[in-house]
Amino acid sequence: MSKMQYLVAMPTIAIVGATGLVGKELQKVLKIRNFPVDELRLFSSKDSAPNFRGVDIAFFCVSASVAEVLIPKALEEGSLCIDSSSAFRMEPHVPLVIPEINPSALKGHKGLIASPNCTTTLMLLALAPLHAVSPIEKIICSSYQAASGAGARALEEMRSKASLHESPQNNSGYNEEEEKMHWESQKILGDDSLVVSATCVRVPIPRVHSLSLHCTFKEEIALDQAEELLKNSPGLEWVDHAFTTDEASGKEAVFCGRLRVARDDPKSLELWVLGDQLLKGAALNSVQIAEECLK
Amino acid sequence: MSKMQYLVAMPTIAIVGATGLVGKELQKVLKIRNFPVDELRLFSSKDSAPNFRGVDIAFFCVSASVAEVLIPKALEEGSLCIDSSSAFRMEPHVPLVIPEINPSALKGHKGLIASPNCTTTLMLLALAPLHAVSPIEKIICSSYQAASGAGARALEEMRSKASLHESPQNNSGYNEEEEKMHWESQKILGDDSLVVSATCVRVPIPRVHSLSLHCTFKEEIALDQAEELLKNSPGLEWVDHAFTTDEASGKEAVFCGRLRVARDDPKSLELWVLGDQLLKGAALNSVQIAEECLK
Repeated sequence: MSKMQYLVAMPTIAIVGATGLVGKELQKVLKIRNFPVDELRLFSSKDSAPNFRGVDIAFFCVSASVAEVLIPKALEEGSLCIDSSSAFRMEPHVPLVIPEINPSALKGHKGLIASPNCTTTLMLLALAPLHAVSPIEKIICSSYQAASGAGARALEEMRSKASLHESPQNNSGYNEEEEKMHWESQKILGDDSLVVSATCVRVPIPRVHSLSLHCTFKEEIALDQAEELLKNSPGLEWVDHAFTTDEASGKEAVFCGRLRVARDDPKSLELWVLGDQLLKGAALNSVQIAEECLK
Repeated sequence: MSKMQYLVAMPTIAIVGATGLVGKELQKVLKIRNFPVDELRLFSSKDSAPNFRGVDIAFFCVSASVAEVLIPKALEEGSLCIDSSSAFRMEPHVPLVIPEINPSALKGHKGLIASPNCTTTLMLLALAPLHAVSPIEKIICSSYQAASGAGARALEEMRSKASLHESPQNNSGYNEEEEKMHWESQKILGDDSLVVSATCVRVPIPRVHSLSLHCTFKEEIALDQAEELLKNSPGLEWVDHAFTTDEASGKEAVFCGRLRVARDDPKSLELWVLGDQLLKGAALNSVQIAEECLK
């Protein structure tokens, strides 16, 4: 158990990694959403010794290796830690939370809550309303990931060279991002039988991840019903026209459209999902987790 | 039957649409491959009355609507017509040919041969060697299509704005490009039961289409065997490192890699395929068809 017993109404906030792309977005999101802040302490990921004394909520927007070192220190000081890195996501005692989907996972947390991989979050936000009606058996996903998902340097590189990039494969044949989508989806939806076969590719887009999804459900969901569910889900916005990534950039919502029954398989639906991976895929989801904890 | 009975050793060639992206590539391909040319007549797609008298082989690199008007005129003059547009691809008496896959479809042609949709060609070139060992039942494909696939103007637009683009859906839920991939694949592989569930998206890449493929076969193909087949297929080049679209630009080969058994489905393989859609996807395939006819 952390020392933190409850959260104060006007917390002292720390952002670790405040100068990175996600950290900067997080500062904006706190302001836009009028998140209560008594004091705000900003640390860059290079600050070797951020001081967490008196910090009620610490947001970590740093790499997994930095998070692994700093989060134990913040927990010792009793800070509620919200981590957007992959460092602790798969630890059984660490809730992995998308507030629209599994807020109940926050119950009995031990001071550390993980925010999922950006691509996982966008995908599940669109699929969870359908999963609630008929369980997902399998997802085949191809991603079109923005350069800013790989940090500020990748964004600069993109501007000089428009090309697609892949990451090296693991022994499984899948790369790290593709593995995360499988295992994190199982944990968030609480279903060990769920299969995610993902192909993750980086495209020369400054911002906004897009996903081509082919999703097989246990039972057939009628197209009308699926559309109705997607139109009425929190955090989701239905799109019925040709849509570019620019239109989703800087928006809190995740957008979905191009819904159709897969050719020759009535139990499978295909849809196109896109969202700002720096917002719902990272900073916004972390702030929403904090909001949920303050309720 | 066209008037053309046989092809001369040094043919007179016409290129209709010679100033477009594909037409320009076609001129280069003829030179590079030392295609025999007695006389070369170049027509822009705006030439209202190209004269086909004496033309042995006419390459059409124009839109379907222009091809529909001009090809009958060339056939009347006895020219062998090779059409890269979609105008006649699905006509039963018109062979739809990828020379590495179905050269026998050329037998008994009536003077008009169609070259398939660029994305279809790249996909099938990679999958045909596997299909020969165990028939494909279903392909789930997500494309990452270069701007130049939509013509010179789209290429210019891309340079000013990096964003993803989709095309509007038909009543089926699929767009025109996605429909082509399904129906043309059935025709080329000669299998009406084959299913292609495609999602085609344009990305801000100047050149080279990429494909994320999830392919289910009738019988399991061992990973080793599949890799061996892909490494030894004409027109294909195996890639075992992270590969960017730039590296495939301007190359005749279609590249494939990232092969793996799909998570939890031994009958499905996933792979990444990329190729220059102006070359093997269009100009090169058309020239190869002509070469095959001259044999």
